[in-house]
Amino acid sequence: MTTHSAVPTAPADTADAASPIPISEEEIFAAHEGGKLSVGVVRPIDSKRDLSIAYTPGVAQVSRAIAADPALAQSHTWASRLVAVVSDGTAVLGLGDIGASASLPVMEGKSALFKTFAGLDSIPIVLDTTDTDEIVETLVRIAPSFGAVNLEDVAAPRCFELERRLIEALDMPVMHDDQHGTAVVVLAALTNAAKVVGKELAELRVVISGAGSAGVAVAEILLAVGLTDVIVLDSRGTLHPGRTDISGVKRDLAERTNPRRIEHGTTAALAGADAFVGVSSSTVPEADVAGMAEDAIIFALSNPDPEITPDVARQYAAVVATGRSDFPNQINNVLAFPGIFRGALDAGAKGITLQMKIAAAHAISELALEGLSVDRIVPSPLDPRVAPAVAAAVIAAV
Amino acid sequence: MTTHSAVPTAPADTADAASPIPISEEEIFAAHEGGKLSVGVVRPIDSKRDLSIAYTPGVAQVSRAIAADPALAQSHTWASRLVAVVSDGTAVLGLGDIGASASLPVMEGKSALFKTFAGLDSIPIVLDTTDTDEIVETLVRIAPSFGAVNLEDVAAPRCFELERRLIEALDMPVMHDDQHGTAVVVLAALTNAAKVVGKELAELRVVISGAGSAGVAVAEILLAVGLTDVIVLDSRGTLHPGRTDISGVKRDLAERTNPRRIEHGTTAALAGADAFVGVSSSTVPEADVAGMAEDAIIFALSNPDPEITPDVARQYAAVVATGRSDFPNQINNVLAFPGIFRGALDAGAKGITLQMKIAAAHAISELALEGLSVDRIVPSPLDPRVAPAVAAAVIAAV
Repeated sequence: MTTHSAVPTAPADTADAASPIPISEEEIFAAHEGGKLSVGVVRPIDSKRDLSIAYTPGVAQVSRAIAADPALAQSHTWASRLVAVVSDGTAVLGLGDIGASASLPVMEGKSALFKTFAGLDSIPIVLDTTDTDEIVETLVRIAPSFGAVNLEDVAAPRCFELERRLIEALDMPVMHDDQHGTAVVVLAALTNAAKVVGKELAELRVVISGAGSAGVAVAEILLAVGLTDVIVLDSRGTLHPGRTDISGVKRDLAERTNPRRIEHGTTAALAGADAFVGVSSSTVPEADVAGMAEDAIIFALSNPDPEITPDVARQYAAVVATGRSDFPNQINNVLAFPGIFRGALDAGAKGITLQMKIAAAHAISELALEGLSVDRIVPSPLDPRVAPAVAAAVIAAV
Repeated sequence: MTTHSAVPTAPADTADAASPIPISEEEIFAAHEGGKLSVGVVRPIDSKRDLSIAYTPGVAQVSRAIAADPALAQSHTWASRLVAVVSDGTAVLGLGDIGASASLPVMEGKSALFKTFAGLDSIPIVLDTTDTDEIVETLVRIAPSFGAVNLEDVAAPRCFELERRLIEALDMPVMHDDQHGTAVVVLAALTNAAKVVGKELAELRVVISGAGSAGVAVAEILLAVGLTDVIVLDSRGTLHPGRTDISGVKRDLAERTNPRRIEHGTTAALAGADAFVGVSSSTVPEADVAGMAEDAIIFALSNPDPEITPDVARQYAAVVATGRSDFPNQINNVLAFPGIFRGALDAGAKGITLQMKIAAAHAISELALEGLSVDRIVPSPLDPRVAPAVAAAVIAAV
C-alpha cells in the first residue's frame, strides 16, 4: 500500500493553480455583517398617488379580484416568482446538524445566487423543527406565500421522504437541491470529463462515495442516462444485495447498482474504476485513488473540505474537480439550481421531472464544449449564459 | 330625525378638495403585475472571490460561528432586521375573509411601505389556516427566519388571542398593526384635532364605532392616556355593563368605558359627543353625526369606504379625517408601523410596550404642530421625517 509520504509532491505550478483564493476570516465575517439580502420595491412609492395604488384604496381592487379568481394571484403577486429556500439545518454544507439559525447564512447565500444568476427572488425559511410531519404541515400552511421550494441541507435519509411528501402536498415545483442540483451538475461534468479522457460516458465504472442525499441522486441520474457500472459506498462499505444493515433508499440502490457485486470498502471499489464521485463529507485514502484506471476522473465534492486534496488527486487522475469556488472545475450546484427553478417557474410547471433535470445537465455540459480541457469541464459558475441556457432547456423539457 | 336629502350638499370647492385622486382600474392592475417586491443582494457577487465569501467555502465559517454562539445570528444574518408581515386573510382591509392569496397584495404593499418609509426589509407570510393554535405553531417553527412579526388583517376577536399568544411564544417584537398601528395614529391625530378645536384631549367625549381589532385598541390607548368618556359601539349598540350578549374583550371594555352608561345605538352615543372614530366597516347615519357637539371631530377610518363621506361629514364637524390616501388628513397606519418596528428592531427590544406606542403617537403629533390646521392634523404619510422620529421615540421608550 502506497503511503502519503511516498507520493511525489505536486510541481509548483500545479499547486499554484489549485491553491485557494486567500480570504481572511475578517473579510468573510465583514461581508456577512447584517446579512446578505434585502427586500426591494419594484415600483417606487413617491407620491400619494403611488400610495393609493400600491396600498389603500387601490390594492383592495386587486385583493377583491384574486378572491373572485384565485388564478390572478399567479399574475398579480410576487408568489408565483418567489422561491422559498427551506432548511431545517440538519446537514449544512459539510458541517452537519448545526440548527436553523446557523444554516441561515447558507440559505441567504443561496438566495443571493438565485438573484445573481437567474434574476429570481427567493426568501430563506429556516425551520426550528426536524420532524418531517411538522415540516410538511408548516410549508403547506404558508404555501400561498411562494411559488416553489428549494429544499436545502436536510439530512439523509429523512430528506428523501420529506421531498417526496412535499412534492405530493404542494402544487408547485419542489426540489431538494443537495440531491438533484448536485446530480445535474455531476452528470454535466462527468459527460464532459469522459469526453476529455476519450471514454464513453455509459461505459464508465463510477464509484460514488456517500449514500446520502447527493450520492443517491447522483447514482439515480447516472443510471437514468444509461450507466450500468455504478457502485455506491456508505460509511460501512459498498452497497450490495448481501448487506443486511441497510433499508429504504439504500436497499433499493443496492439491488440496482454494483453489478460486479464488489464488497468491502473503497480499496476494492476503486480498483480499476474510471471515476470517483465524493459526496461523503469524509476522506478517501490516497492509496485507494492510486488504484483507479488510467485517465481516472476524480470529483472530490465535499464542502468545505474535499475528500482528497486536489494537488494529491492530480497525481493519479487526468481530471480533478471539487465543489469549491477556489479550485478549477467547480462542480457546484450554482450551475444548476438557478436555471432549473427559473425554467420551472417561467413554464408554470407544477413539478421538476427527471427529464427536466437531464435537460439541465445537457445544457450545462454543452456550454463547456468550447475550450473543453482537463481544467475546464464545466462552465464557470460566473458564466452569465448558464442559467438562461438551463432555464430554456428546462422549459423545453416540461 | 334629519334625513340625508334634507342636508345641503357640499359646495363645489369643498367637494373638490375631497375628491379622490382618479386612478383607473387598468392602472392599478398594471402596477400589481408580477407583484410589488423583489429580493436583492446587499453585496454583489461578481467574482469567484465574492462567491467564495458569500457561499462555499467562506459561508461555512459564519455558520460554524453561529452554531457555536447563537447570538451571532443577530449580527450576521438578515433575520434580526427582517419583519414578517403575517396574515391569514380573514379581515383584509374592509373586504373581510377573502383568504391568504387574496390578502397577499396588501401584505406586499405593507412590505413596500416598510422599505419605503423605514428602510426595513420584510417578507409577507400568508397563512392557509385560520386556526389560532396552528398559526402560533407555524410561526414558532419558522421563527429563526425573521426578527419581528407584523400581524395583519386577522379577524376579531381571534386577533386578540393570537397576538397575545404570539407575544408569549416568540422572543421578538410582535404587533397586530390593525390594533396598535391604528391606535397610535388615532391618538396622534386626536391629540392634534383637540388642539385645533381648542379642547382638552382628556376631556373629549369620544365615540368609537367598531369593537373589532382597531376599535378595541383605540379605546385602550385613549383610556391609557387619561380619557374617561369613551363609548365603544359594536353592531348591536354601545358596550355597557348591562349587555348580556358580550364576552371576552368586549365584556372587559364594557366595564371600563361608557361611564354615563349610554345604551342603544349611535344616535344616543353621538348626542353631544366631541369625537367620532369610525373603524367599523359600516356607515354612520348623517342624522346621528348632526347631533354631535360644537366643533366636532370625525375620523371615518374604514377602508376603502369611510363610514361617512368626508363631504357630508364636513357639514357637521370642524375636523374630518379618513384612512384613505386620497383625502386630506389621512389617518393611516403607515405613519406608525414603519417607525415602530424600526425602533423596536434597532433597540433590540423583545416586545412592543404601551409606553413605546404612546411615545410613537407623540412623535407623530409633534411633527404636525408646525402648520397645524383642520386639514392637517397629522403629517403627510410621505413625510420622510416621520419614521425616523417615531423610531427614535420608540427607542427612547424601550
